[in-house]
Amino acid sequence: MCGIAGVWNVDEAYNVIHDVLLTLQHRGQQSAGVVVNGFKSVKGEGLVENVLTSERYIPGTKGIGHVRYSTYGSLDEIQPITAHTLKGRISVAHNGNIVDADEKRRFIMESGGIFATTLDTEIIIHYFSIAPYANPRESLQWALSRIKAAYSIVVLHDTFLAAARDSFGIRPLFYGKFQEGYIVASEDVALRVLGCEEITEIEPGTVVFFTDNKPPEIVRFAKRDDRFCSFEFVYFARPDSNFYGVNVHEVRKALGRKLYEEHKLQADIVVPVLDSGFSGALGYSQASGIPIEYGLIRNHYIGRSFIMPKNRQDIVRRKLAALNAVLEGKEVLLIDDSIVRGTTMKLIVEMVKEAGVKKVYVGIHSPPVVGPCNYGIDTSRRSELIASQNDLEKLQEYVGADKLVYLSVEGYREVFESCGVRGICMGCFDLNYPV
Amino acid sequence: MCGIAGVWNVDEAYNVIHDVLLTLQHRGQQSAGVVVNGFKSVKGEGLVENVLTSERYIPGTKGIGHVRYSTYGSLDEIQPITAHTLKGRISVAHNGNIVDADEKRRFIMESGGIFATTLDTEIIIHYFSIAPYANPRESLQWALSRIKAAYSIVVLHDTFLAAARDSFGIRPLFYGKFQEGYIVASEDVALRVLGCEEITEIEPGTVVFFTDNKPPEIVRFAKRDDRFCSFEFVYFARPDSNFYGVNVHEVRKALGRKLYEEHKLQADIVVPVLDSGFSGALGYSQASGIPIEYGLIRNHYIGRSFIMPKNRQDIVRRKLAALNAVLEGKEVLLIDDSIVRGTTMKLIVEMVKEAGVKKVYVGIHSPPVVGPCNYGIDTSRRSELIASQNDLEKLQEYVGADKLVYLSVEGYREVFESCGVRGICMGCFDLNYPV
Amino acid sequence: MCGIAGVWNVDEAYNVIHDVLLTLQHRGQQSAGVVVNGFKSVKGEGLVENVLTSERYIPGTKGIGHVRYSTYGSLDEIQPITAHTLKGRISVAHNGNIVDADEKRRFIMESGGIFATTLDTEIIIHYFSIAPYANPRESLQWALSRIKAAYSIVVLHDTFLAAARDSFGIRPLFYGKFQEGYIVASEDVALRVLGCEEITEIEPGTVVFFTDNKPPEIVRFAKRDDRFCSFEFVYFARPDSNFYGVNVHEVRKALGRKLYEEHKLQADIVVPVLDSGFSGALGYSQASGIPIEYGLIRNHYIGRSFIMPKNRQDIVRRKLAALNAVLEGKEVLLIDDSIVRGTTMKLIVEMVKEAGVKKVYVGIHSPPVVGPCNYGIDTSRRSELIASQNDLEKLQEYVGADKLVYLSVEGYREVFESCGVRGICMGCFDLNYPV
Amino acid sequence: MCGIAGVWNVDEAYNVIHDVLLTLQHRGQQSAGVVVNGFKSVKGEGLVENVLTSERYIPGTKGIGHVRYSTYGSLDEIQPITAHTLKGRISVAHNGNIVDADEKRRFIMESGGIFATTLDTEIIIHYFSIAPYANPRESLQWALSRIKAAYSIVVLHDTFLAAARDSFGIRPLFYGKFQEGYIVASEDVALRVLGCEEITEIEPGTVVFFTDNKPPEIVRFAKRDDRFCSFEFVYFARPDSNFYGVNVHEVRKALGRKLYEEHKLQADIVVPVLDSGFSGALGYSQASGIPIEYGLIRNHYIGRSFIMPKNRQDIVRRKLAALNAVLEGKEVLLIDDSIVRGTTMKLIVEMVKEAGVKKVYVGIHSPPVVGPCNYGIDTSRRSELIASQNDLEKLQEYVGADKLVYLSVEGYREVFESCGVRGICMGCFDLNYPV
Repeated sequence: MCGIAGVWNVDEAYNVIHDVLLTLQHRGQQSAGVVVNGFKSVKGEGLVENVLTSERYIPGTKGIGHVRYSTYGSLDEIQPITAHTLKGRISVAHNGNIVDADEKRRFIMESGGIFATTLDTEIIIHYFSIAPYANPRESLQWALSRIKAAYSIVVLHDTFLAAARDSFGIRPLFYGKFQEGYIVASEDVALRVLGCEEITEIEPGTVVFFTDNKPPEIVRFAKRDDRFCSFEFVYFARPDSNFYGVNVHEVRKALGRKLYEEHKLQADIVVPVLDSGFSGALGYSQASGIPIEYGLIRNHYIGRSFIMPKNRQDIVRRKLAALNAVLEGKEVLLIDDSIVRGTTMKLIVEMVKEAGVKKVYVGIHSPPVVGPCNYGIDTSRRSELIASQNDLEKLQEYVGADKLVYLSVEGYREVFESCGVRGICMGCFDLNYPV
Repeated sequence: MCGIAGVWNVDEAYNVIHDVLLTLQHRGQQSAGVVVNGFKSVKGEGLVENVLTSERYIPGTKGIGHVRYSTYGSLDEIQPITAHTLKGRISVAHNGNIVDADEKRRFIMESGGIFATTLDTEIIIHYFSIAPYANPRESLQWALSRIKAAYSIVVLHDTFLAAARDSFGIRPLFYGKFQEGYIVASEDVALRVLGCEEITEIEPGTVVFFTDNKPPEIVRFAKRDDRFCSFEFVYFARPDSNFYGVNVHEVRKALGRKLYEEHKLQADIVVPVLDSGFSGALGYSQASGIPIEYGLIRNHYIGRSFIMPKNRQDIVRRKLAALNAVLEGKEVLLIDDSIVRGTTMKLIVEMVKEAGVKKVYVGIHSPPVVGPCNYGIDTSRRSELIASQNDLEKLQEYVGADKLVYLSVEGYREVFESCGVRGICMGCFDLNYPV
Repeated sequence: MCGIAGVWNVDEAYNVIHDVLLTLQHRGQQSAGVVVNGFKSVKGEGLVENVLTSERYIPGTKGIGHVRYSTYGSLDEIQPITAHTLKGRISVAHNGNIVDADEKRRFIMESGGIFATTLDTEIIIHYFSIAPYANPRESLQWALSRIKAAYSIVVLHDTFLAAARDSFGIRPLFYGKFQEGYIVASEDVALRVLGCEEITEIEPGTVVFFTDNKPPEIVRFAKRDDRFCSFEFVYFARPDSNFYGVNVHEVRKALGRKLYEEHKLQADIVVPVLDSGFSGALGYSQASGIPIEYGLIRNHYIGRSFIMPKNRQDIVRRKLAALNAVLEGKEVLLIDDSIVRGTTMKLIVEMVKEAGVKKVYVGIHSPPVVGPCNYGIDTSRRSELIASQNDLEKLQEYVGADKLVYLSVEGYREVFESCGVRGICMGCFDLNYPV
Repeated sequence: MCGIAGVWNVDEAYNVIHDVLLTLQHRGQQSAGVVVNGFKSVKGEGLVENVLTSERYIPGTKGIGHVRYSTYGSLDEIQPITAHTLKGRISVAHNGNIVDADEKRRFIMESGGIFATTLDTEIIIHYFSIAPYANPRESLQWALSRIKAAYSIVVLHDTFLAAARDSFGIRPLFYGKFQEGYIVASEDVALRVLGCEEITEIEPGTVVFFTDNKPPEIVRFAKRDDRFCSFEFVYFARPDSNFYGVNVHEVRKALGRKLYEEHKLQADIVVPVLDSGFSGALGYSQASGIPIEYGLIRNHYIGRSFIMPKNRQDIVRRKLAALNAVLEGKEVLLIDDSIVRGTTMKLIVEMVKEAGVKKVYVGIHSPPVVGPCNYGIDTSRRSELIASQNDLEKLQEYVGADKLVYLSVEGYREVFESCGVRGICMGCFDLNYPV
């Protein structure tokens, strides 16, 4: 997963992008990068505040930025990437995947093209370059229309900043007015935190061009067919973000409520697995009347510390600690948003048992993840998805819970519908992939 | 405030201290330091994972460590500090203050002594050196008994590790068995996270000596007179820590409950100011039946980023964001543990109002802070304590709340008594200081 | 100017390249880079020992490396550069320039190609990629034969290491046997220092392929037409390097001797401008019988210190100091290899005068530099070449010498002929450029 | 060995000290440190330009600095060191040793004093602190008069900068006028390079105080008894430095001449071992008429590279390369200033032989080093001094030369006398130590 940002006509573009990426940091902590006017760049592995330091400040009023959680591509290939073309220099950062990337790379290379990286981003630049137009804007539109992709993208050119979403609108993208210019960001919360006005969700299948002395121009390059990633709502986005005008925290609460309605599972306390399970646990608590409690404490200072014991158990124990005083002697229902490989949940259940609970139940406010994501979420290969290999009984046994419940696929879909979210992608839950 | 750690006879002392300090990181993020056998040290400004990196690993099985939130002393004076004396080399890290430090420094300097730092720690070393004993252990006991202090301390000598608390036991200190040796830490959670056994709270007025081939020896050097810092329970410690066998989260909940009992203030939702107000808010919610809600989101990736706008308002807005979908149109009761200077709460109230609430109330689950702390918490000088300069009405006006309520001093004391916590220090609330 | 290195089948390729580049460091101090098997790279600005540190070690037995003194291209574009092509991954480092680079870039871009950098190196990769051959070796040969260039080059492919010189052989390149494999380097001294055997100068117009289980294969791709850069002898190479089997120091001495023969200029002492003028001064001293003296001391610890006063005068004074005890009251003849912009010599003359000399003469053991170098030496644009804008009298006045003498173009050519050096390029002296 | 610097009332003290230390860098490359007004410091291992970077700039107009070549003390104890005393803060940097340091440390510790470091410098601070005077200047004078030492020292106090030399004047120290203030430095060349005026050599047994609004005050604290380290002339100082008004390069040349006069050893060429043997070789060449030649090339880019092969032979070969074209077939006389352990010379002789010389002779323009230096030069323990364990015949055999000649002790002394250098220390040559 990734977070992207773009600015046009703002003071100290570098600092503004820094602040936007800081608010998008939850979307990727592996690397950060910025390109500012003149296509000067600062990039590095690690968190925004370690990479985009004030010592590396680049002056300028336009630019794009990127934070990344490794998916495909090697770690040292840090976006944005920049190239020189006949149509001017261009720099691109994207969030998502090109579905037929291998084919397209091959096609380009067969025509003699070379690739500096293994990133899908570079394919977009090649298409921009080979587009049968002299005009860079038309070339970009052509490139976007030719690529079967699931992405949001920001593009910096000498003459414009462009922000686009694929026709399915799988990944989010927003822009807002800031000072005399504009900011683009993956989530609206980043725009609100900076005090933007007129915050707008970019429509699937459109590209917005920001140029000097003109309002943003919206150009449709593909028919809209909404299949927004529902996992953004469930797990990825910040609770104070909104997609389709619907608040993420509220959707998670609704999923938690639905989970209660489907199973009516009783317990003494509802304990969220921090931080991802909090909203769902609140919904479950409100629907069921079972008090929510603080039974697991997360250490927010643990980042990418390499000294720490490498076995997963020790890592989990240093990140999450059980609050024995709260758990002891209780029937405890742990709520989390999802289970991918299952190893972390198994360790949490173990830790909670050691705290002396009477029973431990696990409630997941989404359906079992049975398929990989082809659109930019690193949910590992299918063989590692525990729910794709095991039935519920075996899963329950593996994680060690006295009971394990999931939300049904139907229930899940209903919640989104009732919340008013337009078409969503549920591929990882129902194997029904849009492209 | 500070966190301290010590280890004796463990594999890879450096790494173990690293892990202990990581769990104590909430006690200080300004600097970190470690001294390992042979008195080699690694020190630096910043977080544990940035300072105590694996590249700087020092082999050894014994050592002490320190994390610091600036109080007195300049930032580059990072503990532990080490000195050569006639009685051997000695390294010291402490948490707290020497009350008559200025007098004692002057006395030492008048005798011709010199100080390499401005740290109170160095006074302890001087007293160790001038103690009328040839034996280092007796010298340390003598030094501890002569110093009017409010501190916990770890001392590394060629022949022992010592861990001591002053007679009032103002700052916490624990030890536990680990492998064939021992670990000492400011909070018991750090020992539990590492899997220690036989975790023991060090008694006020005693020093524990860890030496080879012997169980820990406990020596009393002063009469016990418990005045444990109640602010450790209210704000400083992790919720999953315990002092006097009493859980911090449970005390905070009890304070929240008491706050409701004293004021019966009603609202549509109770919203904790994250992360410090969560436990109290939960107590308030449970006592009142008003649902707890997630109305403020904290960005945990914001550390000590220096690029960020320097005005306090922008910093608060990047750290905490209002969740409009939750707050809009509601009567909201914000719960926090305390108000020191008042500026942050004023900005939070402003932000909550902008989210479109009907009313905003503020509940503080401790009494007004009217005096500074002389024992190691950096609660600023009296003139900056907003509650020491203003009555409740003016305070309420300043923070901009429709109503502001505090817990009474009596109510506060009762909660601790009912929880079974022995004598506490409430100096910052009632100006009744122990020393 | 640049230095290049390549290794094939050696233990710890990274370390061997490090050591080769260290001996080639005089060819470029601005940046250093290495690519090792699997196309992992380490690159950075600064000296070899600061960039290619042991912490960044990459395992492997094959690789190429580069040190650079900025010519064209921005500083952050550090060689070697790597690309993915249909014919495999390829990494290239070169020393020199492509003469018609702008045309060739344009041609590639008009065919839809994109460039990740502004380096000429990337053009070679594009030609490799578009070559009408499936075979990577044939493709490289085709690319080399198509490019009008003045360069030496090393190329790493999954299946071979290649080392080539253009048809004029403007830049040097050597290889030698090392352990079970081979090392390639810009100067033979780097191979001798490492203990290589069978050191061979690569012939202009040929490429040498190093592959597994075979001796090096030499392939001619262009007709040889020797125009070796005479400035390599005069200034750039180490004195203990040899080209065409002729020692650099001996050529410089011969130039110094010739300078005496042409002018018979007398003085009390001959003082070399360190380090570049030493060999020439020795030749002058030997031919004239005037004693050589140590009248200017160079501080070798001054590298790229940015604190130092930015005006040129202060920089020169910190780098070179006059030895008053030697200079005072003497007629002094300063010997240097060349004058480019003239500013440094002016400051040196000033400094020498302040030391109380009776007379100061300047002897340059090469002709006036009247044209820029188009083949990789950064001798600035023509307008900055002081000798291209002024006659000898004005030059003498500008540098402030009592007399200024140059070697004649004819005398210069004769020295090379008599030393047995095959065809040389003297473009910067006689504007007669080979391509 | 070390280099020290001090400044009083200059603009940008940090930068000026940086520049002075850069010129003194040959006196120590292991660490560098600076303390500027307010006693803020920057310290680190490595070269001046890596440690005292512009990012670490500290504003101020007064300060002291230090560069160090390890002698006693661990590497992380980097000077200057600072302490708080009753008489104010004080910071000290010194070059040399306290002869009875162990006794004095013990005495201080027996009185209850503690030491933060193992440096002799701290003893001086203790004596300053215990001095029976309230006045800091009188206290410093008392401390200097009580300490049997061989040192030069700079001291920064809130109210003055002091610069002193012990009664023997073993280590050099100078000051000069700069802008409205003063600079102190170990060698006069550093003052000349910066453009100082009225450069003055501090008299042995005196301390110079620099204070505001007054000319420097010179106070004698001990009787002068000149025993200046003759090794400063032979090896340590820069050739363009002067002591007692006598130029270092000229003394070295005189030593080279004397070496010829004593032995009349003939050869085809005289080859200096760079850089230390150059001046002596020039003297030998001038006296003998044998031409000086450039037969060994030094790579100045090799600093403290840790990747390089750790065996001494490889290191020497990468630092020094034989110039075969010059050496082949010749009778070669290598000239160096001294032989300490003998291992490097052995490797050089080997290398020169491999270049195909007819004969290789070695001439050393100082007597055999038979005793260690107790005054700050790190000439290793006596057992490692090859000349203290072997007669000349065995030495010659060990280094592998066809002939090895040294200057006689008498001849050595005569040269200094005839040059007009006052009393010198020759302890390492004749075991006649001054203290």
